[in-house]
Amino acid sequence: MWYTENGNMGDVVLSTRVRLARNIASIPFAPRMTKKNQGDVIEKCRKAFEGDKDMKFIDISSMRDYERQALAEKHIISPEMVSSTRRTGLLLSGDERAAIMLNEEDHIRIQYMSSGLDRNCLVEANRLDDKLEASVDFAFDPQIGYLTCCPTNVGTGMRASVMVFLPAMVMSNSADRIFRSLSTLGMTVRGLYGEGSNSAGNIFQISNQVTLGVSEEEIWNKLEQITGEIVEKERELRKKLYENSKYETEDRVLRSLGILTNARLMSGQEALARLSDVRLGISLGIIKDVSVEKLNEVMYHTFPATIVNTFNIFSARERDLKRAEITKELTKAPCSDDLNGSNKENKAAGYAEQGDDLNA
Amino acid sequence: MWYTENGNMGDVVLSTRVRLARNIASIPFAPRMTKKNQGDVIEKCRKAFEGDKDMKFIDISSMRDYERQALAEKHIISPEMVSSTRRTGLLLSGDERAAIMLNEEDHIRIQYMSSGLDRNCLVEANRLDDKLEASVDFAFDPQIGYLTCCPTNVGTGMRASVMVFLPAMVMSNSADRIFRSLSTLGMTVRGLYGEGSNSAGNIFQISNQVTLGVSEEEIWNKLEQITGEIVEKERELRKKLYENSKYETEDRVLRSLGILTNARLMSGQEALARLSDVRLGISLGIIKDVSVEKLNEVMYHTFPATIVNTFNIFSARERDLKRAEITKELTKAPCSDDLNGSNKENKAAGYAEQGDDLNA
Repeated sequence: MWYTENGNMGDVVLSTRVRLARNIASIPFAPRMTKKNQGDVIEKCRKAFEGDKDMKFIDISSMRDYERQALAEKHIISPEMVSSTRRTGLLLSGDERAAIMLNEEDHIRIQYMSSGLDRNCLVEANRLDDKLEASVDFAFDPQIGYLTCCPTNVGTGMRASVMVFLPAMVMSNSADRIFRSLSTLGMTVRGLYGEGSNSAGNIFQISNQVTLGVSEEEIWNKLEQITGEIVEKERELRKKLYENSKYETEDRVLRSLGILTNARLMSGQEALARLSDVRLGISLGIIKDVSVEKLNEVMYHTFPATIVNTFNIFSARERDLKRAEITKELTKAPCSDDLNGSNKENKAAGYAEQGDDLNA
Repeated sequence: MWYTENGNMGDVVLSTRVRLARNIASIPFAPRMTKKNQGDVIEKCRKAFEGDKDMKFIDISSMRDYERQALAEKHIISPEMVSSTRRTGLLLSGDERAAIMLNEEDHIRIQYMSSGLDRNCLVEANRLDDKLEASVDFAFDPQIGYLTCCPTNVGTGMRASVMVFLPAMVMSNSADRIFRSLSTLGMTVRGLYGEGSNSAGNIFQISNQVTLGVSEEEIWNKLEQITGEIVEKERELRKKLYENSKYETEDRVLRSLGILTNARLMSGQEALARLSDVRLGISLGIIKDVSVEKLNEVMYHTFPATIVNTFNIFSARERDLKRAEITKELTKAPCSDDLNGSNKENKAAGYAEQGDDLNA
């Protein structure tokens, strides 16, 4: 799957996502929608992809909480959609790069994701947009652009974001200062699954704040430029960190690997923190027998709902046991069936792609 | 070497030592000795073992501090002898079980050491005693017994001790209570290298307090009996610990193994604590790929003065680096040359057995 790949500038940039917010002109916006309207949105969009063998429809409304959560852990759906009581749906490509959320805040949220820093996300999101627009009439104002539920999305309706791994910025206490300067440049920074610079795993999302009065190209170019600068800064800080505290850095990184591959119980929080150390260790050349792909695979498999979903494990304690088994895989051969469980039940629940999904 | 062996009741009893305090009748006791008297003690005792190819004389007075300390780390000489300004010497057998300290508190301290609980220590100490007595006239009173420098040793002059590993007693907070009851039975308990129940590594020395008005046999039998009870209690507590917190115990033990075999920096204190976890793990059958012999070998090699002595490393930081290399050996093949360095200099300093010594 794309989210285990080591992409462009992969030592710092884990992934790129371009998201376009769209609404259907003939249907009321979310706050005023009836159940029937919600059904219509889903109907129209499914029709737009009829005959497309790659884009499968998933009925999010009928999924269990942990199944939704597992999708959110991979950023395929938004946290908002996990708890939504609307009739929600998802059009998802086989490779899980293209994901069109239906009845999230807007009628339609087109997403395209890729590993590393990848301009292709913009190209592909636009392609999905064109495909929808061929059969659906979007709410559009010639002066303003695309109309959206929340005014912060009006105009292009585009949010381009990168997930960046910034351990050296955090360790050197320069993250907060750099994040503040980013916000003066019209960028927003969030933790992996929430706000603030206290992100477990030292993973942050950087995205554009402004969607109005700029073109999609301009939004992308700015993100690309700023990301490039962040990458340079982080690389420089890592180099400095390693030069100034060679043995302490090696010790930290190698202990984390030792614990991940030996512990019997592992919380999600600890796994994320220690995997962050291992990722740093790989990028500094300290750890050579773990690939970034393997690390990514293991990281996604340690997320709580993903464990529930893959192994039908509902107790937190048993998840900690299972998670410790999963992190042991780090130093084993690149592809392991052990991580994938055999969760027939979820398929019955309507999430047909389930089996492949977790076969990272 | 004997101290890496896994002896009788080796899951709890690391080693046994029998020590006999003796003084030469014609020479003043320690506080009143001249340098010449000290030389005479050494002379007479060396003569008693003349022609004995196994017992080598080592001139402790001419050794460097860390060389003496390295001997003390293996309990071959006492901590008092490390800092002594007297002319001190040692008669040491090739297998390092028999060690006769000269000009410690008493003129002569005969020691015999063995792994596990081993009555043979008494037999062998008596044999050494007889051998000395054949040519040296001991200070002896028919009413009281052997006369010693400190009144607490008068009588038999015998101290029998066992080193016991009591992690479950410590974890269950029952160590202090049990140690107090031992003292009412005339036994003394100390930490591995000092007083108190706060011993790093959960290793304690139990020895007889009373030396007067009892026979050597009685002293031994009592120690043997009490040690047997301690062993039973500790085994029972370990079983209970593992039953009550299976995963937490496995987690603790396996994390320690993971850290010992992966860390880049390792302090002596941490090594001792984590090796204690591994020892517990071996005894509970959690860790199967580390032998007790290997564990003992690694433990002795991590002691600070032993590292100085083996590798000529004088900086604490570099010792922490070397120690982390040493603990990595835990899961490697049983015999490794890497631990033994090549310290020619010490041989020149008069400690001829040095090279073999650390070849555990």
